[in-house]
This record gives sequence, C-alpha cells and structure tokens, in this order.
Amino acid sequence: MKKNIKLPEPQKELDFPLMRALENRRSIRKWKDTPLSEQELSNLLWAACGVTKEKYGKVKSKRTAPSACNSQEIRVYVLLASGAYLYNEENHELAGILKKDIREHIGTQKMMKSAPMGLVYVADLSRMTSPFLRSEEAKRFSAWVDTGYVSQNVYLYCAASNLSTVALALIDREKLRTLMGLEESEKIVLTQVVGHSLTPS
Amino acid sequence: MKKNIKLPEPQKELDFPLMRALENRRSIRKWKDTPLSEQELSNLLWAACGVTKEKYGKVKSKRTAPSACNSQEIRVYVLLASGAYLYNEENHELAGILKKDIREHIGTQKMMKSAPMGLVYVADLSRMTSPFLRSEEAKRFSAWVDTGYVSQNVYLYCAASNLSTVALALIDREKLRTLMGLEESEKIVLTQVVGHSLTPS
Repeated sequence: MKKNIKLPEPQKELDFPLMRALENRRSIRKWKDTPLSEQELSNLLWAACGVTKEKYGKVKSKRTAPSACNSQEIRVYVLLASGAYLYNEENHELAGILKKDIREHIGTQKMMKSAPMGLVYVADLSRMTSPFLRSEEAKRFSAWVDTGYVSQNVYLYCAASNLSTVALALIDREKLRTLMGLEESEKIVLTQVVGHSLTPS
Repeated sequence: MKKNIKLPEPQKELDFPLMRALENRRSIRKWKDTPLSEQELSNLLWAACGVTKEKYGKVKSKRTAPSACNSQEIRVYVLLASGAYLYNEENHELAGILKKDIREHIGTQKMMKSAPMGLVYVADLSRMTSPFLRSEEAKRFSAWVDTGYVSQNVYLYCAASNLSTVALALIDREKLRTLMGLEESEKIVLTQVVGHSLTPS
C-alpha cells in the first residue's frame, strides 16, 4: 500500500550564489498548482537537512542543519497529492506513511488549500537523550531553534530555485498529528509550503 | 565614550554557491585568534539579518531572515575586543553599548575564553505585538524558531568564507545580561562564536 520514493541524487553542483539567495529570500503565499519534480524534491530535502558526511560506526552522520547536541530530532514529513511521507535522510528517500492527500491541513489559512506540497517539521523529543537536554523545557527550546535551522535552508533553496515558500505556525496541530498518526514523542513545530513561483525567474 | 562603527557595504556579489555552503556547514570549536576585518563583519551581519528591501513609510524593511508576523524581534549583539555593540540593520552599523571586553562570557565552555568574537541573539519580546503572538508561550516559541533562522544564515556565511563557527546554548545568561545591561523584555536565546578557520580554504 504505502510506497517509498527513492529520490535522485541532489544536484549539489548548482552554482546559485549564497549571497544572492539571502538577498532574494522572501515569504510568499502564492504559487502555481504544478507539482515539484522528483529532482526538485531531492534538492529541497537535501538542502533542508540532508546528509553531508555519512555515519561511521557509532558516529552519527553530519547534516546541512545543526541540532542541539547533534540530536537530529527534527523529522521532515512531506505532504504530496499522493500521500504523506517521512524524509529518510540516510537513504535519501521518502518513506510512505499515508496514502491520502492531506495537503489542505498544512495550515489553517484559506490559501493553504491550494498548497502544491507541504513540509511538516516534527520534533521527536525521544531523540534528545543528551544530559544537557534533560528537562522538557530544554528539549522544546532546542527543538524550536533547530526547526529554524532546517526551515531557513528551505527558504534559501527556494530563493535560489524560483520556488515560493512560507513557514506556517497557524496550524491545527491536533488534527494534523492525528491524520499523520504521529507518536506521542513527536511534536509538530511548524509547517512550510513550497510551490513553483508565479514570477518568471 | 561608546563608539559606533559604520560598516562598509556588504559584498553581496560574492559568488560562493549556496549548495556548497550547505555541504560545508559545520559546528567548529577551533579558530585563530585574529580579529575579523570590518568587511567580514559587514558581510556576516548582513547575511545574518540584514536589510534586503528598505522600509517604506509604515511598511517594515525586509530581511535575510524571516520572523513571526514580521516582528523582527531578534537583535544581534556583537562582542569584540573593543567592547559590545548592537547591530543596527537599518543603518548597517554597530552601535556601541559597552566599552569593555566581555567576550569570555559568550559561553561557559573553557575554549570560549579564546573566542575572537561572539554574537548574542537576543529576543526583544516587546517587539512582538501581533495578536497572533499574545501569549508569553507564543512569543517565546516564535523567538526561538526565529533565532534558528538568523543563526543558520551565519553558519552558511561562515561555511562560504572559511570561518569557524558554533552556536552555543551553554551560557550564563544572567551574568551576560547583567554585563550587557539588557532590558527586561530582552531575552538571551543563544550565542554564536565566529573566528578565522585554522584550515586553509
């Protein structure tokens, strides 16, 4: 039933300059209704929190985004027309978790009903096992900052690739977590919409 | 007494690719003891949260980093050998706030005593006036995420510019806020060290 999507290799050789991506970064709530290609998904997800150095024995992989005590607690779920998926960074693939289109739940604003795809940033607090992150408050505090790290990578990749994007905090988190069947330890922090820009590049 | 430092124009034309910056991003706790040049400071701070579109009447400026309801509540303080400064984004200058070297308080780990410069990310909760951010929890939640946005820009600029950097949560916040003379509404979220890399580029 649930299909995994093996993503093509990310195009790490793209030469769009960092400084120009910073200058172009914007929150944009308008997009075409065309789906992203698998190559675009691959690039976007690798930019978000992809592996930059593979794990070696007990040494964890390195990622494009830092995390508190290298907990790597932010999981990126992807909502597409074909269903909901979890981005598996180590295999660079999308693991199917739900064969149902729940994109309209990415946010509560009306325009979100037309979102061509959505990212759901979920903090898995059970991954935060460092003694420095013992309290619930320390865990949440760090997970929120870490979500900003991942989300900014998405903003910059979109700015470099003529994609519209906006991060959302107005979310019906209970509805969305129920639909997605999240574990108790998994907390929805933010969501982010991505679509092809209406403006020609 | 307190000196303002007018920064040179940021070098927005630098062509280091975004994808390579993402691939090179790392937390590094080793650095040379040489100070950053004013040009490096200029580039770094503009990348962090600089103005990309000037304000127009009542319309706020746009920044390289997003913020909840465009509150622009994250203030970047800069600790240098010559003192402590507040980055004024609109004028692209450093406003002197303290003529004393307090860099050793950037973090509590021993190696931080040799930090050539430090950034202190302070959330000014009084700037969060949107009705969507009414509760103290909503303010903090958003400010922590927004700190991640700014800090990731710094990580990527450093990755593109042969600078070592690491964000820090192990901070004596009470000590640091007292030394800096912060207002009650200003909360220290994170700090970040930046220095010249020991590795040749």
